[in-house]
Order: sequence, then structure tokens, then C-alpha cells
Amino acid sequence: MTSTELPTRKQTTGMTTIERVATDLYRVPLKRHLTDSTHGVMMDFELVTVRVEDSDGAVGLGYTYTVNHGGAAVATMVERDLAGCLVGADPARIEQRWQDMWWRLHYAGRGGHQTSAMSAVDIALWDLAGVRAGLPLWRLFGGYDPVVPVYAGGIDLELPLEALLEQADGFVADGFRAIKMKVGRADLREDVTRVGAMREHLGDGFPLMVDANMKWSVDEALRAARAFAPFDLAWIEEPTIPDDLVGNARIVAHGGHPIAAGENLHTIYDFAGAIDAGALTLPEPDVSNIGGFTTFRKVAALAEAHNLRLTSHGVHDLTVHALAATPSRTYMEAHGFGLDDYIAEPMAVRDGLVVAPERPGHGVELDFLGLERLSAA
Amino acid sequence: MTSTELPTRKQTTGMTTIERVATDLYRVPLKRHLTDSTHGVMMDFELVTVRVEDSDGAVGLGYTYTVNHGGAAVATMVERDLAGCLVGADPARIEQRWQDMWWRLHYAGRGGHQTSAMSAVDIALWDLAGVRAGLPLWRLFGGYDPVVPVYAGGIDLELPLEALLEQADGFVADGFRAIKMKVGRADLREDVTRVGAMREHLGDGFPLMVDANMKWSVDEALRAARAFAPFDLAWIEEPTIPDDLVGNARIVAHGGHPIAAGENLHTIYDFAGAIDAGALTLPEPDVSNIGGFTTFRKVAALAEAHNLRLTSHGVHDLTVHALAATPSRTYMEAHGFGLDDYIAEPMAVRDGLVVAPERPGHGVELDFLGLERLSAA
Repeated sequence: MTSTELPTRKQTTGMTTIERVATDLYRVPLKRHLTDSTHGVMMDFELVTVRVEDSDGAVGLGYTYTVNHGGAAVATMVERDLAGCLVGADPARIEQRWQDMWWRLHYAGRGGHQTSAMSAVDIALWDLAGVRAGLPLWRLFGGYDPVVPVYAGGIDLELPLEALLEQADGFVADGFRAIKMKVGRADLREDVTRVGAMREHLGDGFPLMVDANMKWSVDEALRAARAFAPFDLAWIEEPTIPDDLVGNARIVAHGGHPIAAGENLHTIYDFAGAIDAGALTLPEPDVSNIGGFTTFRKVAALAEAHNLRLTSHGVHDLTVHALAATPSRTYMEAHGFGLDDYIAEPMAVRDGLVVAPERPGHGVELDFLGLERLSAA
Repeated sequence: MTSTELPTRKQTTGMTTIERVATDLYRVPLKRHLTDSTHGVMMDFELVTVRVEDSDGAVGLGYTYTVNHGGAAVATMVERDLAGCLVGADPARIEQRWQDMWWRLHYAGRGGHQTSAMSAVDIALWDLAGVRAGLPLWRLFGGYDPVVPVYAGGIDLELPLEALLEQADGFVADGFRAIKMKVGRADLREDVTRVGAMREHLGDGFPLMVDANMKWSVDEALRAARAFAPFDLAWIEEPTIPDDLVGNARIVAHGGHPIAAGENLHTIYDFAGAIDAGALTLPEPDVSNIGGFTTFRKVAALAEAHNLRLTSHGVHDLTVHALAATPSRTYMEAHGFGLDDYIAEPMAVRDGLVVAPERPGHGVELDFLGLERLSAA
């Protein structure tokens, strides 16, 4: 084959610039109130959307959410601080846009709500890149396997035992083959009873995870880990605060369970520190607060380099693209998030698996007309 | 002496509750534009003020600032997220108010702009406590020594050499006996020339610090440290990004200079991690982004427990109270901040020293009428 026989490279249209960055804040009600050991009762989620339009009129969509509070500040950051360094710039140089945003808010930022705001923008930029290339993101990311195992993330600490088991039946009926439940009740014996009942109800071998949402001291976590020993847990999530690397490493070393954590880590440095310290075994970034796909995929690389399986937190309709491009992944979390009613084609679970869509970009279309009445501007 | 002879404890008035939390955002112009290696040209600062009024009508004042960006988000957090957990609560239980604020914004927060917002509130609560007790904060904190050594923080990377030396003369005329200058120019040889000229100008023994604002890689920092060896620097500040604990530890171990850092660390965990890693020798918290006096004083305890001298960043009129209560302190930074015109009695420097005021609370009165025209709401 001579060089003249090589297929002609398809010429993409020329460079564009970012024309407009629009952000909106909504309060999305939950059909069923959620409860965990740290955030109490959650009756809704704050949703911050970002739409980036380029000079050709193509639009990318991103979004992030907060638990109960902080959404207005995130929207304010996009509008008052980030838009100014985006408009007029090349939307395809996403790494450079990311750096601009990072340094623009670095003082007083360096993580926190800054990375949620950046995530929404970063996701919108990647969506735009996918739309322009005519490729779903998971393929743009170097596609591994679109079929991704998924688990149902129950947010159910205060659910009576009966209702907890019923909820599990519902998850199985919906196609799930792995379930996470909340722990961290005031009396550990109640947790043990509930986890034991779930294990018995689901049967041996059914993947069951528990999530303590940072409730415990390190000693309490080790006590709980010992008490959970008979239940063959897939993992214990966030046994204590993520800031305590030494303490988490002690739980990993002596707890006898895999330890997942990451929804409260907001930078690659947070993950690198936790991984280097042996403070977790299952990194669990959230694409909507870690800094978007750009950072999520770097965390995936970190995880792979350390022989750790990657899981995820939140916004599964977006996350599926990142995990579909990640060889070292394990279960993706399906988050009990009230957004399904506002998504054109929400994720469908079959036999414990979901399939990353072939639609260009992330392929999520939000019903902005329907969302209008939920505006919390 | 019998118990009846004991002096009667003065009865404070009864418990109050927080009645109102008012926050405002201003853009305060700088008389002279500032430049450093990371933030570029700074023409003004964003100032976020918080006034907390209790049910007796007593008022505490707090404030924070940002460099160029992020102020609107900080004000939004106070207004939309923090006020809701403050109003109706006991303003004297500051540790509990702090926890409420921390957990309210923890998801997506855990630092970042959250701690700047919390700082402004925390400072206002402490001010209120001082006002109610009729005590200046440095005494309320267990007073050590109101006379605090201070250095002039020059923000002068792009100042021509002539002007840099003139600025130093001005600092000395203003009473300063220690000066910090910026480094991190594109060509290290220029830094070396400038630092050498300053050393010669100021004379041997005059405390001179340099601040790189995270400009360098670790290798570049070590190269600079070696080049600065002849100049007897009091310290090098922020040679590289604060996230790289291993790299900073290498600079501490092999650079041959004391290393200050902390304006970009926002939690006690950040400081504990950096101290444990040997990544700095002079902790430099900013009371207006670390979480207020409550956290600043915990960092001071951490520093003392590790035999490290505490310095500071920013808002000297507030910080002086914390350092006046800290035995293990060294120089406080006097920040080139355009706020003096709006403070009733700004800090006065004499012979390299400042004296913490005896006015109740922090004793800073802001000219809100004068600030009005700087509103950036």
C-alpha cells in the first residue's frame, strides 16, 4: 500500500470559538426522600446546567449537582468568573480551557465548588467536541467496552427494614444485579441487623456494598468492619472523613474489606495522595465534581497505574462514557437522582448492565422546558 | 481566704441568638497595580463583608477577599447557604456554628471558596464575642504579647529594578524592618539580579524574603534555591504548587532555605498533611480563607506542636490578634491591600513592629458608606 492509497482524512470544519456560556440553576425534587448518615434528609437536588455554544452554533451541554446546598454559588462562579475566560476561546482545546478555569479561581479555590463549576463546563466542552466529531464520548475517549456493570445506589439509611428489602426487590425488578445500602445508624447493632437481613434476602454471591458517608471514627469503622465480616461485602464506602489518609489506610489494612471513596475528593492530587497513602482500594470519582471528563480520565489512569478498579459516583448518564473507555473499571453507580423525568433517553439497566449510547457527545438531552418550573435562580 | 471573699464573677448578659446575617461584595481598587508570577496583574481586590447581628442588637464584622475572581460566589454562599444555618442559633457557640457551616457545604465543598465564606462569618462571630465580652480578641484568645513583628509584602514581580529599590526605601520609611519581594520571572537570572540588588541595597542582616507564587517545578525551585544561596534569605515562599507534598519536601530537604507556604491551604487537614510530609517549615495561614480565627488558631497549635514558627498571609488588621496570642509566631505579613482608606484606625508600623489594639473584638471599623460606591453586587 503506497501513501497515495491511504484513505483521505476527513477534514473537520475549521476552528471555532466559544460564543456563549449559559448557566441555569434548578431544584429537582426527589420522588422519594433520601437519607444518609451525613447529609440527613434529601428532598431534592440542586442542578446546575451549562450550555456552551460555539461560533458555528453547535451546542455542548454539561451539568453538575449539589447535595442540598451550594448550587447558587456554583452557578455564580460559571457566570461571573468562568464565562469571562471561555468566551472567544477555542472550545476544542479543552485541556487549555481547563487550565484557564483552574488558575482563574485558584486563589480561595484549589478545589471545592470550583471543580463542580469547572466540571459542568468541561462536560459541555467534551459534549461539543463529540457532537462536532459525530462520535459518542466513549469512542472519542478511545473506547474500551460500551457494556458497563452497574449497581443501584440506595440512599436509605432511615428506611424501615421492611421497606429496605422491598426497595431491593424493586432494584432487581429494574434490572440491577448489585446493590449498595447506607449504614451509619446511631447504634451499630442496627446496621448489622439490616446488612444481615439484606444479605439473607439477596442470597449468597449477590454483590452488596455499604456506604457510611464518613459517619465513623477510625476505631468505629474498624469495629463496624469486624461486625460486617460475615456478610461478604463488595466494599465499604467512606467509612470516615476523606481528609484522614492515615486513618483510612488503617481501615484498609485492618478492616478486612475493600474500601471505596472519592465523591468528596475534588482533584487529581486528592486522589494521588489517597492512593499513595493506601487510603482506599476503589477510587470513586464523580465526573460532575472532580473537574469533568478531563480529570475523571486522569483519575482512571492513576487507578490503573496502581492496579485499582475504578468505580464512580453520581450522574450515571454522563459517567457511562468514561467507564466505557476504562479497562480497569468495576461497577458504575446508578444514583437515585430525580433527573430521569427530564432526560430524553435515560439509562436503561438490563441484567446488571448498561450500554453507553452511540449518540454523538454524551447524548443526554435535557428537557429545559420541563425544568423551567424548577428554576431556583 | 474563704469562698465568700472570692470576687464575684461578672455576669454576662444572657444567651442571645443570631438575628441577621448581612453580606456585601465590593471591588476595592489598588493605588498601585500588583504583579506576581501566578495571578498576573492585580488592579483591585474583591472584598466580601459579613455583619452578624444578635438579638441584643450587637454586631460583629467579618470579611474576606479574593484575588481577581470568586468573590460573588463567596457572597452567594453566605447569603444562600450559610445564613440559613446561622439565624436563630447561639452566636457564642462558635465551634458549633463552624461545624454547621462546614457540613452544610461539605458536598462539593470541603475547602475552596467554602472556607473563605466561613472565614468571614467566623471572624464576625469572634468579633461579636469580643465586643460582648468587652475584650480585644488577642486577649480573648489567651493573650501572649500584643507587639508583633511584621514584614512588608511587596507584590512587585514586574516592577523595574529601580522602582523595586525605591519601594524598599518607602517600606523602611514607613517603619518596616523586613521585606518580601516576588520572584519567578521567566528568566531565573533576572530573579538573581533583583534579589542580589535588594540584598545589597538593604544590607547584611536585613530580613529579606522571596515569594515565587508556585511558579516553579521542583527542579526549577531547587535550581533557584541554589542560585539564591548567597543572599541569606529569611525564607522562600511557595516555590511550587501546594498539592505536591513530596516535591515540596524535597525542596525543604535540599534547597537550603526555610520554606513558607499556606495561603493556598484551606483546612487543618491541608496543614497537617504538609507539616507531616515536611513540605514546609513556616506555616502561613490566611485567617480570611482558612476558616477564620477558629481554624487559624488550630493551625497555630499544629505549628507549635511541630516546632515550627507561624507566619501569616493577608488581612493584617485581623491577623494581628491571632499572632498576638501565639507564642511560636514569627513575622506577620502586611499585605499591600487597598483597604486602609476604608478602615477607621489602620495598623501602624513602628520599628518593624505593630501592636494589637485594645479595642473590643478585632477593633476594625469599616467605612461602609465610603465602600458603597465600590459595590460589585
